[in-house]
Amino acid sequence: MRIKATFAYDGAGYSGWQIQEKPNPPATIQGAVESALFTLLNTKIRVFGAGRTDAGVHALGQVAHFDVPAREWDWRARLNAVLPADIRVLEAIPCAAGFHARKDATSKTYSYQFWQEPSFVAPTMRNYVWPCNPLDLAAMRKCLIALHGEHDFASFQNSGTHVDSTRRIIYDVTLNQVHLPEYPACRPIVRLEITGNGFLKQMVRNLAGFLAAIGKRKLVWQDLGHILQAKNRAALPSATAPAKGLFLTKVNYANK
Amino acid sequence: MRIKATFAYDGAGYSGWQIQEKPNPPATIQGAVESALFTLLNTKIRVFGAGRTDAGVHALGQVAHFDVPAREWDWRARLNAVLPADIRVLEAIPCAAGFHARKDATSKTYSYQFWQEPSFVAPTMRNYVWPCNPLDLAAMRKCLIALHGEHDFASFQNSGTHVDSTRRIIYDVTLNQVHLPEYPACRPIVRLEITGNGFLKQMVRNLAGFLAAIGKRKLVWQDLGHILQAKNRAALPSATAPAKGLFLTKVNYANK
Repeated sequence: MRIKATFAYDGAGYSGWQIQEKPNPPATIQGAVESALFTLLNTKIRVFGAGRTDAGVHALGQVAHFDVPAREWDWRARLNAVLPADIRVLEAIPCAAGFHARKDATSKTYSYQFWQEPSFVAPTMRNYVWPCNPLDLAAMRKCLIALHGEHDFASFQNSGTHVDSTRRIIYDVTLNQVHLPEYPACRPIVRLEITGNGFLKQMVRNLAGFLAAIGKRKLVWQDLGHILQAKNRAALPSATAPAKGLFLTKVNYANK
Repeated sequence: MRIKATFAYDGAGYSGWQIQEKPNPPATIQGAVESALFTLLNTKIRVFGAGRTDAGVHALGQVAHFDVPAREWDWRARLNAVLPADIRVLEAIPCAAGFHARKDATSKTYSYQFWQEPSFVAPTMRNYVWPCNPLDLAAMRKCLIALHGEHDFASFQNSGTHVDSTRRIIYDVTLNQVHLPEYPACRPIVRLEITGNGFLKQMVRNLAGFLAAIGKRKLVWQDLGHILQAKNRAALPSATAPAKGLFLTKVNYANK
């Protein structure tokens, strides 16, 4: 039977989603999930994730599928009993035998969290935000409008992974302020949320870095046009935003 | 000159506030702050905290005072530049030479966070909540009314620290639900907030354990009367709640 499982994790302790096949492999999320399944079933089960999150990237809704011997189990409870506390299963239910977590995904939603005061990052949030200076949200929001739709995002792709096409469609992209009631004196977190049909390698982090540069008034939204046209990462003057601010928030499928 | 400083910290990596004078002392918050001052001033400066938080307990508003050579410094920025990321200074300003962080405090506010699903604790919240079962808030709230005012809290005191009196006044105690927008499928956090003129050793954690037992319907609020009357920790059947759910939220002074 095939299981579709949805995961939340704190990526700080992991070298990303994907297992690295080498001697002394580093800890990965996929590796931890496969270990948990081995603990439960005493059989090696391959787990297929919807997206490979990078080292240090978190998830609120990563999806994976895997095939297991038929059991009348509460798979969520069984997995949560053996997984480490920084990886949790939100849902784990039998699905169609042909379901594929990555190939069937119609879109994905990522969030990126900016902190607006570099010298004071709330201790309990320090692993989940990028420390920036105060950001000009109005300037950043002008850029969001231009990001919607289909573009060639080659300039927002870091090297290392070959893809057939660098065109991607952005369905929705928003910026919101999240006030933290436990830190009333702090500026709110700025949260970018972006949904697209797919994302190139570190594309969300490059978009976050570009938007932060606009928010810090080092770039303007009108720079987007010539950066996109260049189709070259070297044309993007801003740095890739750090992994710790990024969350894979949701993987969307056509049937739900 | 004397400085009044307000701190937020993640207590997970520390053996509490207070420096332990022994060979190979463990990491403490006070020790880290004194180290930071030594880095800045090359002089040993003693730091006096308003309350000694236990190992693993967090703070959103711990207050301390210390005497430093007169400097036209932004003490907050200077300290944050040299403190570890899990300890942050919210405010550090010159104060009256006679100000004493502990002796001048008129009341303190602590928060305690309960998580309502033991098998699924949100990964990003796992160090800041106590995993419980779903809690009956209405039952717990009935107890809050009875807690208000002055009582002898000897039954809620763990052994190890001598005090002249075990009577304390609770000025305010509330329970609220905090919804986490990033985990829409999860039950809200239940947050206890309690303000009193002082708290005995692990008194808030013993109250949290007692309230959780009421919330799990293992005890009833009417048990409070005979537990208080016994003036003996052995009369309290519930366990001390773990440190990781506790925050020293605010230290209150008469002049502000």
